[in-house]
Amino acid sequence: MNQLSLHGIVPPVVTPLTEDMQIDAPSLRRVVRHLIDGGVHGLFILGSSSEVVFLDPARRADVIRIAVDEAAGRVPVIAGVIDTSTDRCVEHARQAHELGVDGLVLTAPFYARTSQTEIVDHFCYVRDAVDLPLIAYDIPVCVNIKLERDTLRALYERKAIVALKDSSGDDGNMRMVMRDFASHPDFAVLTGSEITVDYAMLGGAHGAVPGLANVDPAGYVRLYEAAKKGDWVAARAEQQRLIELFEIVFQAYPDVSRNASGVGAFKTAMQMMGIIAHRHMNRPNAVLSDVHAAKVRAIVEKSGLLQAG
Amino acid sequence: MNQLSLHGIVPPVVTPLTEDMQIDAPSLRRVVRHLIDGGVHGLFILGSSSEVVFLDPARRADVIRIAVDEAAGRVPVIAGVIDTSTDRCVEHARQAHELGVDGLVLTAPFYARTSQTEIVDHFCYVRDAVDLPLIAYDIPVCVNIKLERDTLRALYERKAIVALKDSSGDDGNMRMVMRDFASHPDFAVLTGSEITVDYAMLGGAHGAVPGLANVDPAGYVRLYEAAKKGDWVAARAEQQRLIELFEIVFQAYPDVSRNASGVGAFKTAMQMMGIIAHRHMNRPNAVLSDVHAAKVRAIVEKSGLLQAG
Amino acid sequence: MNQLSLHGIVPPVVTPLTEDMQIDAPSLRRVVRHLIDGGVHGLFILGSSSEVVFLDPARRADVIRIAVDEAAGRVPVIAGVIDTSTDRCVEHARQAHELGVDGLVLTAPFYARTSQTEIVDHFCYVRDAVDLPLIAYDIPVCVNIKLERDTLRALYERKAIVALKDSSGDDGNMRMVMRDFASHPDFAVLTGSEITVDYAMLGGAHGAVPGLANVDPAGYVRLYEAAKKGDWVAARAEQQRLIELFEIVFQAYPDVSRNASGVGAFKTAMQMMGIIAHRHMNRPNAVLSDVHAAKVRAIVEKSGLLQAG
Amino acid sequence: MNQLSLHGIVPPVVTPLTEDMQIDAPSLRRVVRHLIDGGVHGLFILGSSSEVVFLDPARRADVIRIAVDEAAGRVPVIAGVIDTSTDRCVEHARQAHELGVDGLVLTAPFYARTSQTEIVDHFCYVRDAVDLPLIAYDIPVCVNIKLERDTLRALYERKAIVALKDSSGDDGNMRMVMRDFASHPDFAVLTGSEITVDYAMLGGAHGAVPGLANVDPAGYVRLYEAAKKGDWVAARAEQQRLIELFEIVFQAYPDVSRNASGVGAFKTAMQMMGIIAHRHMNRPNAVLSDVHAAKVRAIVEKSGLLQAG
Repeated sequence: MNQLSLHGIVPPVVTPLTEDMQIDAPSLRRVVRHLIDGGVHGLFILGSSSEVVFLDPARRADVIRIAVDEAAGRVPVIAGVIDTSTDRCVEHARQAHELGVDGLVLTAPFYARTSQTEIVDHFCYVRDAVDLPLIAYDIPVCVNIKLERDTLRALYERKAIVALKDSSGDDGNMRMVMRDFASHPDFAVLTGSEITVDYAMLGGAHGAVPGLANVDPAGYVRLYEAAKKGDWVAARAEQQRLIELFEIVFQAYPDVSRNASGVGAFKTAMQMMGIIAHRHMNRPNAVLSDVHAAKVRAIVEKSGLLQAG
Repeated sequence: MNQLSLHGIVPPVVTPLTEDMQIDAPSLRRVVRHLIDGGVHGLFILGSSSEVVFLDPARRADVIRIAVDEAAGRVPVIAGVIDTSTDRCVEHARQAHELGVDGLVLTAPFYARTSQTEIVDHFCYVRDAVDLPLIAYDIPVCVNIKLERDTLRALYERKAIVALKDSSGDDGNMRMVMRDFASHPDFAVLTGSEITVDYAMLGGAHGAVPGLANVDPAGYVRLYEAAKKGDWVAARAEQQRLIELFEIVFQAYPDVSRNASGVGAFKTAMQMMGIIAHRHMNRPNAVLSDVHAAKVRAIVEKSGLLQAG
Repeated sequence: MNQLSLHGIVPPVVTPLTEDMQIDAPSLRRVVRHLIDGGVHGLFILGSSSEVVFLDPARRADVIRIAVDEAAGRVPVIAGVIDTSTDRCVEHARQAHELGVDGLVLTAPFYARTSQTEIVDHFCYVRDAVDLPLIAYDIPVCVNIKLERDTLRALYERKAIVALKDSSGDDGNMRMVMRDFASHPDFAVLTGSEITVDYAMLGGAHGAVPGLANVDPAGYVRLYEAAKKGDWVAARAEQQRLIELFEIVFQAYPDVSRNASGVGAFKTAMQMMGIIAHRHMNRPNAVLSDVHAAKVRAIVEKSGLLQAG
Repeated sequence: MNQLSLHGIVPPVVTPLTEDMQIDAPSLRRVVRHLIDGGVHGLFILGSSSEVVFLDPARRADVIRIAVDEAAGRVPVIAGVIDTSTDRCVEHARQAHELGVDGLVLTAPFYARTSQTEIVDHFCYVRDAVDLPLIAYDIPVCVNIKLERDTLRALYERKAIVALKDSSGDDGNMRMVMRDFASHPDFAVLTGSEITVDYAMLGGAHGAVPGLANVDPAGYVRLYEAAKKGDWVAARAEQQRLIELFEIVFQAYPDVSRNASGVGAFKTAMQMMGIIAHRHMNRPNAVLSDVHAAKVRAIVEKSGLLQAG
C-alpha cells in the first residue's frame, strides 16, 4: 500500500467546463500540463475544488481519463471518490481503479449523520472493495462531522488509510494528529490550507493540497522545496506572497457563495492566464461578474502572474 | 400546479432492504398497504427516513415503481429528488416524472456551500426541467443551510414551489413562515416533526410528514383528523401517546449514530409487527443489536401496537 | 418550596434607564403597573430582556426594590441571578432574598465551559445558599450550553429546582421535558417564546415568559386565559395577532445587533405608549434610529395599541 | 500607547486558591517568581486560565496587587478586564489602572449578543475611560462571537487597541490578520495556542500567551528565543516537547469539563512541582481526582519537570 508515498504539492485540480457543461478536455489537458510544468508532485482530481459532487459518474470518468492520460505517469494521480454513502463511494472507487488512478481520497459519509464507528466501517468497506491506497479527507465544513484523532488511529491500525488530507482549518488538532503518527513515517499528513503551508511543513507535514496551486503551482513548489531544505525564511516569503494572491477568493463574496467565490476565482484567474477557456462552474454556483473578475485580475497582476492589461 | 393539494399525514416511507441490500419489494408493498390502510393522505418516498442518499438511481427507480404501483392512485405519491447538485437532482426528477409520481421534494444542494440566491436558482432549474409540483424541504441538520423566510417567499413568487416540508426543528420560524403565507392558502406547510404535530396543526399547518407514522399511521391520522375537527384535547392525547412511542428512537444512541438509532428503530418495530422482513439499513449505518431491539419492543408493546411476547 | 406555584404570563420586565444610565424609577413603576393592570400572573425582573448582565449589583438592587414595592404582593416577583459563576450568582441570590423576591431564576454558568455535572453542582450550591425556590433558565443562545433532559431530572430529584423557563427555541425538546415531568405537576414549565405560547399551552405548559408582553400584557393574558379554558381557536387568534406585533423586533436588524433590535423595539414601543421615558439600552447596545422607530410605530399602530400619529 | 511593546512569552497566570476560596497569596507569589525565573517577557493576569470570570472585584484586586508587587517592574503586567458588559469592564479597568498594571485585555461582551459595530463601540468606551493600552482578546469559544478582521482594523484605526491575543484556534484567519497589520509593526499579535507557537512565530507573531507556560515557562521561552534567532529546528523541537506535555489537559475530560480538565491539569502539575498549595478551582469546576492526577503526574515526569515518584 505504501508505494504511493504521497508528498509535496498535490493540487486539487479544477474541472474546466465547456459552455454546455461537459468536461472541457483541451482545457483540462492544459491545466494538467500547467501543473506538471510548475513542478507539482501529484495531482488530486475530483476533490472539492474540482466540483466533484456536481459531477455524475460519466463526467467523473472523463476527468480521470484525461488527467491520467495527460499525466502519463510523470506524477501520481489520486482521485476523490466523494459521495453521500458507502455504496456510491465503492462504485466511484471501482471506476477510478479501472481507469488507472494511483490512490483514492474519501471523506466521511454526509447528509445522513453517522458516528465515528460507522465512519471507520465506511472506510473499511471501501478498502475491501478496491485494491488501492486510501487517503482520509477531513473536511467538516462540507460533511458536518470531524474525523477525530481516535478515528484516524483506528483506521491506520486497520490498514484502511495511508494518509490524511486535513482541510479542517484546525491546525492545532492537525498538529496533534502529526504527533500521534510521529513514529509511523509511512503515514502521510497533508494540509488542505492555502495560507498555512509553511506552518504545516514546519510541524512535520508531508505536503499540501492547496486549491490556489491551480493558479500558481510553481509558487507552492518553491515554498515546499524551501521548507524541505529547512530554509524557513524563503518558505515564509513565498507563503506571504501566496497569501496576497489568496485574496482573490474573497472578491465575489457575499455576492455569491463562498464556494463560487473561491473556486470561481481560481477559474477566473486561470482563464485570464490562458489556461482554461471558461470560468463558469456547475449549476447552481453563480458565475463571477465582470466587476468581480476585474478585482481578481488586479490581484493576479500584482502577483506578477499576469501582465497589467 | 396546485392540483396536488398536499395535506394530512404523508409519511416518509422507510425503504426495506433484502439481505443483499436490494429493495425488498414484498416488504415495501406491505409497508404501502399498511400506511394506506392506516388512512394516510399521501406517501413521501425517497426522503431522509427512506435512506434516499444511500440509494443509486436504479434502486430509487425500484422504490418509485413499487410504491406507485401499490398505491394505485389511492393517495398521491411524492418523491424526494435529494442529491448534492442541481444536475443530479434534475436526473432524479426526470426519472421520477417518467415513473409517475405526483410531486417532487427538493432540499438545498449540500456538501458544497451555496448562498440563498444560488438555492433559489437551484429550485428554478429543477422546476424548469420537469412539469411536476415541487415541495421545498428545509432540513439544515443534513444540508447545513437554512431555507430562509425570504428564500421561501422568492421561490413561491417565482412559482417554483407549492409547499414546504419543515424539518428544521425550529417551530418558531415555521410559525413565521405560516404567517408569511397566511394569505396564500394554495401554499401548503407540513411539519417533519413527530412530536409537535398538534402544535403545527394549531398553528395552521396543512399536515405532517412524521417518520414514526411508518410504525403507527393510524395514530397520526387520528391526530390529524381530531385537529381538523378542532378537537384539540383529542389531538393532544393522541400526540402524547405518540410521544411515548417516539422514545424508540433514542434506545440505541449513542451506541450507533442518531440516524441508525432513529430509522433503525422504525424498521425494528415494523419487523416485529410483521410488516418488513429485515431491519438493517444501508452501509455504513450500524444495525440495532438484540439488546437495543428488546428495548424498542418493550416500548412498542406498551403502546398497544404489539402483544407482549 | 412549591408555594410559589409559578404559572400564567410572567413577563421579563424591561429595565428603563435614565439619560445617565441609572434605573429610571418612575418609568419602572409605570411598567409594573402597566403589566399588573394587564392582568399578568407574575413578574420576572432581571432577565435577559431586562439587560441583567449589564447591571451591577447596586442597580440590580434598585430594580428589585422598585418592582417589589410597586407590585406590593399582588403578584409574585421572581428575579434573575444571572452571572458567570456560582459565587457571583450566590451573591445576587442573597441580595434578592433580602430584598424580598419570591423566587430566583438561574442559568448555567457561562464564558467558562462547564459540564452537565458541574451545572447540577452549580444549581445545588445556589439552592444551599438561599432559602428561595429556584427556576432553571435554559437559554443556550446566551450561555452556549443546553440544560439537557437528564440534567433537569437530576436537579428536580435533588430538590434544586421547581420550574423551567425554556428559551431554547427547541419546542420539540421542551415537549419531551414536559413528558418527563408529566407525573410531577408541582414542577412548572414555562416557555420563553413570544410566538408559540399557544403551542406550549396545548402541550401542557404552565405559562409563558414573553418579552413582548411588556408591550401588550393584556394580549398575552387573553391568550393564556383562552388556552386555560380550552378555547384553542381564541388562543390561536390572539397568538396570531401577537405574531404580527412581534415583527417589531426585526426592524433594526442587522443595522444593530439582535439584542438591541429586539429589546430596543420593546422599549421603543413602550416609549411611544407613554410608559417609559427613554428607549436607549445599556452600553454598548446601539439605540434604534428614528427610521427604525418609525417602522416599529407603524406595526404597533396596526395592532391597535397606538393611535395612528 | 505603544510604550507597552508587548512581545515574547506572556503566560496567562493561574490563580491559586486557599481552601476557603480566597486568593492564596504565597502561592501566587511563587507562581510569579517561577514564571519570571523562567524568563517570561510579561504576565497576563486575570485571563481565562486565571478563572477571571469566577472572581469578584475584591479578589481581582488581590490578584493584581500581589502580581504587580511581586513582579516589581521586572516585566510588564497586563490584566484581563473581562466581563459581560461595557460598564462592568470599565469598572474593572479603573481598578486595574489604579493598582498599577501596564495594559488591559478585553474581549467582546458576552451573554447578550452584540454586533461587530457594537463591539467596536465597547472597546472605544473602555479606551476612553482609562489611559492604558488595550489588547483585544479573540476567544469565540467563550464569548460566542468572532473579532472579525474588519473589526480589528477599525479598532486599530480608532487607536483603541495596540495588540491582539488570538485564542480563536483559527490559525489561518490569524495569518490573514498578521498580513493586514504587516505594515503596522507597532501592532502586536500573540497567539493563545499552546501547540502552534512555532507556527505563529514563523508567521510573524510577536509572541504567545500559552496556559501551559505556567507549568514550563522556560520551555516556552526557549521556543521563543529559538524562533527569534531563526533557529526553526530548535523551535520545533521545543514545541514538540511541549506538545507531549500538553497531553495533561485531556486526562480528566470528559469526566470533568474541558475547563476543569485543562486549567485543573495546570494547577495539578504546579502543585506537584511545589509551586502552589492546592489544585482546586472555583465553583462549580470539578477538581481532578487522584486517578486523574496520577495520569497528569506520569506525563509531567516524562517531560523531565518532575522526578519519578
